[in-house]
Amino acid sequence: MKVKLQNVLPEEIEKRSFEMIGEELGEVELDPMEEPVIKRVIHTTADFEYLSNLKFSGGAVGKGMEALRKGAVIVTDTQMAKAGINKATLESLGGEAFCFMSDADVAETAKAAGTTRATASMDKAAALDRPLILAIGNAPTALVRIYELIREGKLKPELIIGVPVGFVNVVESKELIMELEIPYIVAKGRKGGSNVAAAICNALLYQCKPRT
Amino acid sequence: MKVKLQNVLPEEIEKRSFEMIGEELGEVELDPMEEPVIKRVIHTTADFEYLSNLKFSGGAVGKGMEALRKGAVIVTDTQMAKAGINKATLESLGGEAFCFMSDADVAETAKAAGTTRATASMDKAAALDRPLILAIGNAPTALVRIYELIREGKLKPELIIGVPVGFVNVVESKELIMELEIPYIVAKGRKGGSNVAAAICNALLYQCKPRT
Repeated sequence: MKVKLQNVLPEEIEKRSFEMIGEELGEVELDPMEEPVIKRVIHTTADFEYLSNLKFSGGAVGKGMEALRKGAVIVTDTQMAKAGINKATLESLGGEAFCFMSDADVAETAKAAGTTRATASMDKAAALDRPLILAIGNAPTALVRIYELIREGKLKPELIIGVPVGFVNVVESKELIMELEIPYIVAKGRKGGSNVAAAICNALLYQCKPRT
Repeated sequence: MKVKLQNVLPEEIEKRSFEMIGEELGEVELDPMEEPVIKRVIHTTADFEYLSNLKFSGGAVGKGMEALRKGAVIVTDTQMAKAGINKATLESLGGEAFCFMSDADVAETAKAAGTTRATASMDKAAALDRPLILAIGNAPTALVRIYELIREGKLKPELIIGVPVGFVNVVESKELIMELEIPYIVAKGRKGGSNVAAAICNALLYQCKPRT
């Protein structure tokens, strides 16, 4: 073995990773509520661009945590994002994670309306009668539908995590969300992803309830 | 709505995204087998660094496809990566996706041995008696264990997708994999992730069997 490995205990790997991120960030001054979110996204992506990409509406992290503490559910736009959320912690707070993308009724509605399943799944989310965090890591069409539903008074989420990744309407859909008067955490630009959406959810969850 | 959206039909979004990626790549000459893998990873991350980060051992894509065509199973190191793999296509080729990270026996073995669940889950993968693709998007300790098992003659995967993300031993674990005489697709450096691992699996799958 020519390669030299760091000797770090399994239970210390995450802690050491966050220390390394902190060292590289150096003297940057971060909002103490936003800092764990930014660091966890960098931990998930190894991409320091998120230091400048992530945009928070005023008090968004606190509002998200408050929602989680009162049992908010999280609706994602991919099974991957749902898979990445720490469900044990979410459920211990009374919440639950949903992704409607593979639901037969969503596929039918989308097909009939000539729209995407992501769009139809946001309509399904709007029908839930519980405090709601929307975590969108993939589909800009989900964000566009969220914008429309909010403007029509049919949806009022506690927080929008708007971090789809990609090329067609991704940048634009995030700009739309930042026009709204609803708390948001958005990754400006093209970058983001299901992993980033899950990391932001987990950063909020672990601020509510540290893992043991 | 101040923002101007592109008018793209739902079924055309992915196609248009790949066109935009192709336009930005411009005149770069890519290996025709590797090109769909590189483009799909960029599609998944909006990060053009993967153009230079992704390293393929000779013929790795063809060897991975051949394995999938003979019914290889894919073992991932996260539920997220498993969630992101197109299981319908994989199963239509006779394959299956596994992630052992949440298995009770894996947790017990890891605890008893003072190692990570990722390490223990690779031991479990080595016991499978089927052609094997290992898709590692998170845990460098999984790659280190794969290296050891191969060196000990206890594991002989058809392909290693080595794209963990992060800080502690991530760069080093990938260098280890590139020392082996086993086909690999590796994202050199710190970047990678469960999303990248799933994207590479899907790029191989869609070359075997285009989606209808």
